Amino acid sequence: MPEPTMEEIRDASERIQSFVHRTPVFTCKSLNSMCDAEIFFKCENFQKVGAFKIRGATNAVFSLPLEEVSRGVATHSSGNHAAALALAARWRGVKAYVIMPENAPRVKKEAVAGYGAEIIFCKPTLQAREEGLARVVERTGAVFIHPYNDYRVIAGQGTVALEFCREVPELDLIMTPVGGGGLLSGTALAVSAISPGTAVIAAEPDGADDAHRSLLAGRIVPCDHPNTIADGLRTSLGDLTFPIIKKYVRAIVTVSEEGIVSAMRHIWERMKIIVEPSAAVPLGALLTKREEVAGKRIGIILSGGNVDLSNLPW
Amino acid sequence: MPEPTMEEIRDASERIQSFVHRTPVFTCKSLNSMCDAEIFFKCENFQKVGAFKIRGATNAVFSLPLEEVSRGVATHSSGNHAAALALAARWRGVKAYVIMPENAPRVKKEAVAGYGAEIIFCKPTLQAREEGLARVVERTGAVFIHPYNDYRVIAGQGTVALEFCREVPELDLIMTPVGGGGLLSGTALAVSAISPGTAVIAAEPDGADDAHRSLLAGRIVPCDHPNTIADGLRTSLGDLTFPIIKKYVRAIVTVSEEGIVSAMRHIWERMKIIVEPSAAVPLGALLTKREEVAGKRIGIILSGGNVDLSNLPW
Repeated sequence: MPEPTMEEIRDASERIQSFVHRTPVFTCKSLNSMCDAEIFFKCENFQKVGAFKIRGATNAVFSLPLEEVSRGVATHSSGNHAAALALAARWRGVKAYVIMPENAPRVKKEAVAGYGAEIIFCKPTLQAREEGLARVVERTGAVFIHPYNDYRVIAGQGTVALEFCREVPELDLIMTPVGGGGLLSGTALAVSAISPGTAVIAAEPDGADDAHRSLLAGRIVPCDHPNTIADGLRTSLGDLTFPIIKKYVRAIVTVSEEGIVSAMRHIWERMKIIVEPSAAVPLGALLTKREEVAGKRIGIILSGGNVDLSNLPW
Repeated sequence: MPEPTMEEIRDASERIQSFVHRTPVFTCKSLNSMCDAEIFFKCENFQKVGAFKIRGATNAVFSLPLEEVSRGVATHSSGNHAAALALAARWRGVKAYVIMPENAPRVKKEAVAGYGAEIIFCKPTLQAREEGLARVVERTGAVFIHPYNDYRVIAGQGTVALEFCREVPELDLIMTPVGGGGLLSGTALAVSAISPGTAVIAAEPDGADDAHRSLLAGRIVPCDHPNTIADGLRTSLGDLTFPIIKKYVRAIVTVSEEGIVSAMRHIWERMKIIVEPSAAVPLGALLTKREEVAGKRIGIILSGGNVDLSNLPW
């Protein structure tokens, strides 16, 4: 199966538009002067379920024929995809099963349960998640919707960049964080089609830099022991996202934990909006590369805003 | 001197429009269902200096003839007015002197200093502030711009409601917090002129309920020892704001400290935006009066978003 086409991203946009928000684009003078650049922030932290993930999940759930989806959908997820799938399943009127690590943030657990999904907890390892998922799929007949390694999900995530490029044309570069690569590959596909002059650049925590190392090695190098506050980015690239990223992404910049926390705090203090650590990674990257981005017109996708307010990193 | 007219509020709006933001109006489905009402939030937390105060300060500073303002402007303030006056003075190209309580939040001190004002610290009492101010005015010849008891400031604050009523017509009620009464009296004047069918209702902390008690008594009853987390609302009504409030404000609802913190947290978690405790007081009031507001169309002015992120109340 070939990578999603621009037409499939446009179809996804039409399919999901009555369910998801068309999120606003914010600017902030003090962050502009801090980076000596013109930055536009696409606020997916204001999206339904508090993250872009609802786009891919909704596209996947509504792409499935009713006879396939009727026994429910299932996934393993670090949180935002789980909430997204739970809500998309509720919209479609089918059941959602979520295998979730025990140490997921409280707000994420509550959100998933609040949308009516059945949660099955597991140890916080990829292997435990996959085993838990296999058991659930066998028991229920639910369709597995992968958090990122799924073309319908990738096409759904590409709708962020579709809206962004329409609203803010002629960007020099667009930045997203990268975990499993769903948002990044969707963004790369959309941007290369609509705005080929715009470079797509990803940002990744030092402590979960599998995408950076995979691009260097030319093959997927998974990150076995990710160690970062950016809980949405602990996953590794998939065999569907990696080739797209390799083909279309200009560079991947890695950011220290201090850089992530500091960027997150700048966004909270200056923009007065709440973003989760993962969403702050691109600004963290910009702040370490000020001389290279000076004078540029930059789009940043703020991927989500789900934070446990009782447990902040400062 | 009579109270500001609607024409003066419109003049203020024109005078300040190239300096301040026309802030967005947000809605939030989960807060709507929580209150069983339709709520519109006017986001002055996204305003320049992070609060509506820039409107009144800018209107005052730019209303003054150059020969009067040229020796500078001065004020005592719990913080947001100070930052606002400092920035408005910088825009006008004159000096600002700020008498500020030692215990003001760190971000507020930094903001005032960052806008180039000269800060003179004092004890956190009204008397100490007034003495400090008198000394500065005598020494420099600066013009005192009161944080709220000033018709030019009141007219400037009224521009929030002017925008709000234009964007969201036919509200059943509009709510603001009340401290010294600048925002409330400006709102009351604007709403009674543009949208007389809309009730103006204020919300106040239990621990600084001078406005509530003043309305009951029919005269200003100051609050000598305010005790509330809502640091913007520790001031008492002035002799210019009180008569306007008495004439046009339908009711003042008081809110417990727990109610304020809980409303603030709801706004952060559900809307993904940062508001300061003072801004959360109206939602706190709504949440205690659910049966009375059910089914209504309600406007809330989120007054500001300046919070010390290292010192959150949960």
